[in-house]
Amino acid sequence: MPVNAFYAQSGGVTAVINASAGALIAAAREHPGQIGRVLAGRDGILGALREDLIDTTRESAAAIAALAHTPGAAFGSCRHRLGSLTEDRDSYARLLAVFAAHGIGMFFYNGGNDSADTCLKVARAARDHGYPLACLQVPKTVDNDLAGTDCCPGFGSVAKYVATSMREAALDVRSMAATSTSVFVLEVMGRHAGWITAACALASDERHRLPILLLLPEIRHDEARTLARVRLMVERHGYCCVAVSEGLRDADGRFLSETGLRDAFGNAQLGGAGAQVAARVRERLGLKVHFAIADYLQRSARHLASATDLAQAQAVGRGAVAAALRGERTVMVAIERLSDRPYRWQTTTVPLAHVAGRERGLPRGFISRDGYGITERARRYLTPLVRGEAPPPCRDGLPDYPALRNRPVPPRLPAWSGLH
Amino acid sequence: MPVNAFYAQSGGVTAVINASAGALIAAAREHPGQIGRVLAGRDGILGALREDLIDTTRESAAAIAALAHTPGAAFGSCRHRLGSLTEDRDSYARLLAVFAAHGIGMFFYNGGNDSADTCLKVARAARDHGYPLACLQVPKTVDNDLAGTDCCPGFGSVAKYVATSMREAALDVRSMAATSTSVFVLEVMGRHAGWITAACALASDERHRLPILLLLPEIRHDEARTLARVRLMVERHGYCCVAVSEGLRDADGRFLSETGLRDAFGNAQLGGAGAQVAARVRERLGLKVHFAIADYLQRSARHLASATDLAQAQAVGRGAVAAALRGERTVMVAIERLSDRPYRWQTTTVPLAHVAGRERGLPRGFISRDGYGITERARRYLTPLVRGEAPPPCRDGLPDYPALRNRPVPPRLPAWSGLH
Repeated sequence: MPVNAFYAQSGGVTAVINASAGALIAAAREHPGQIGRVLAGRDGILGALREDLIDTTRESAAAIAALAHTPGAAFGSCRHRLGSLTEDRDSYARLLAVFAAHGIGMFFYNGGNDSADTCLKVARAARDHGYPLACLQVPKTVDNDLAGTDCCPGFGSVAKYVATSMREAALDVRSMAATSTSVFVLEVMGRHAGWITAACALASDERHRLPILLLLPEIRHDEARTLARVRLMVERHGYCCVAVSEGLRDADGRFLSETGLRDAFGNAQLGGAGAQVAARVRERLGLKVHFAIADYLQRSARHLASATDLAQAQAVGRGAVAAALRGERTVMVAIERLSDRPYRWQTTTVPLAHVAGRERGLPRGFISRDGYGITERARRYLTPLVRGEAPPPCRDGLPDYPALRNRPVPPRLPAWSGLH
Repeated sequence: MPVNAFYAQSGGVTAVINASAGALIAAAREHPGQIGRVLAGRDGILGALREDLIDTTRESAAAIAALAHTPGAAFGSCRHRLGSLTEDRDSYARLLAVFAAHGIGMFFYNGGNDSADTCLKVARAARDHGYPLACLQVPKTVDNDLAGTDCCPGFGSVAKYVATSMREAALDVRSMAATSTSVFVLEVMGRHAGWITAACALASDERHRLPILLLLPEIRHDEARTLARVRLMVERHGYCCVAVSEGLRDADGRFLSETGLRDAFGNAQLGGAGAQVAARVRERLGLKVHFAIADYLQRSARHLASATDLAQAQAVGRGAVAAALRGERTVMVAIERLSDRPYRWQTTTVPLAHVAGRERGLPRGFISRDGYGITERARRYLTPLVRGEAPPPCRDGLPDYPALRNRPVPPRLPAWSGLH
């Protein structure tokens, strides 16, 4: 007797989260004897709490396949975090009631650190209620800070985006540095871990010698030292590019973004780390500076996705279905690296308890001694993740990103007022 | 008896300016009886004044062909502006002395508005000196504000970049708008003309219905009205995307970037228009906002160049050589549109006097009545310009952008100290 599956997307999107969804749904369809329907949560886990479920069986195989090249979250996502089993007892009970009402025996949660924690709690709640439920996390985060996996689907594509963008911008600033702008600052994501900032260093290689400084969140920002280094780079190369983590902290551990820019009314400003570094270079060094904030552009850039990342996003989606069918119940599907050169990898599973509540920062061995660059080890780790092109189909010169129909499943329970 | 040609790149770069250079050099090589060597100015016109010339004959045909997919300015660019013929008499004399010393009889200047002016002045100086010189402008600007041409090489690619980026970011914000960020602001280039801002509207079409507001430099910014519109869009669609021109002005005609953000020391900040709009949405509407500044990323994004733009960049490079060989002497090569659907175009030439000192803003008929969008006419104009993909070759997952060797021509004149 087949059970239904529930799939939800959680937290910030990536260029390839829908590729995981598409692969998971397609894999589930191959096993009609064991998996009935895949029901997706509208706006993530909130869809389960609100009993706002999307019937993915109403989508054609072509529409599901097209998820492989559609950024954003096809079913909607959210940052709703469930509390402890006692604090949020009603929510867990509601969740399981909705699952029971729709014959759901598999819970696939596509997310990052917080999702591992939620997935684990749902598994415990199900056990406490005696409700048979396989809880599997499908990993996703641009930040690459998820424990238990060699890398995280979503990261390879943002890494490719920031490295490409930094290379292109470096050629730009180099072109006019003699008489105009000589410093370019790019602010990138990664509030707590410097993986994305580190990837900017890939812009420079043997064939493209580009002077790039990284301001990593793992290294406390020493303004005077950084400015001296920028000046040195400009003297030596004529120009300098600086990749700034949005999570850069000062010597006291405070986020630069919280100490810096104010608008005309004295209100603290958004996205401050890069803007502050750019402003200091201009004021203190008297150099002309240009400044970009990649923001959502970096994590949604499906047009520049890494083929490796795409393949891994699909593999973890398929792998979650395979693991559930094998009877695994409280695990995350992970990427295991078998070798760097040639790059070989496979999926595996790790207990959710080894993932939840942990964060994986950039190892010190990946950061150059002076703190402003990456080591050869980091380069060996990063390079294969950005490899391969996987452009989406275009119409009229722009990527074609079709939306699903997202037909709701009729609710079977009374409306619930427990959502705070 | 062949003459040598001088080629220089001027002003801000585009994703395809080197494609013009490559096509021009390749075309010149096809006429060894009429054109001897193409000598490029290192750092633009400064290379001529400093007698710092690059010998392009030292580059292989493959290296010249690779310019078609290399962003930045392969020979360096600058913003050096020559004054009037009387003010800058010494500079013009020096320029012509350098040209004479190197047997240069053709001057190809690859640039925008300022370049047309410079090119025309050099032509007049040559005439006054009785120096035989063909002066031809090869058009280039991301801003698309050059008179005398239907569109300007460089613009199609930045238009494709901002429209793609806006579409991708819109899918991102839509994914989580129900519980998180509901407004996304993207600041784009175009200080005086709204062409790039207008191109952001292409992100939304019949297949992708995305709520996008444009804040064009042609329309004075009315903050209260804009905030009311953002609120309405969020109520109606759940989210809203705003494309802000860096050149947005307030009711008094002042650039927002000059009135707004201050750092902790009270200094006026960079790139202020988008940051200010984002801050106001957050403060006044209480909505969560994300904010990106595309800056150099947009004009250097060769990875996402428009194939139409690339073809036009190459055509104006080849066209300049053809015009010079036909005996045209003081013209810009232009793009003439023959029809919208199907899109057909050809190159032509226009007198430099019709180009210099003019700026072509977005026509009022391209702006929707409410000022926040574009008309069907604008869409018909813009759509063909972003069409077609022309990805660069990649190595290790990143675009491969080889540099030229840029071997100098030995100087033949004494050093000149006249450069101020």
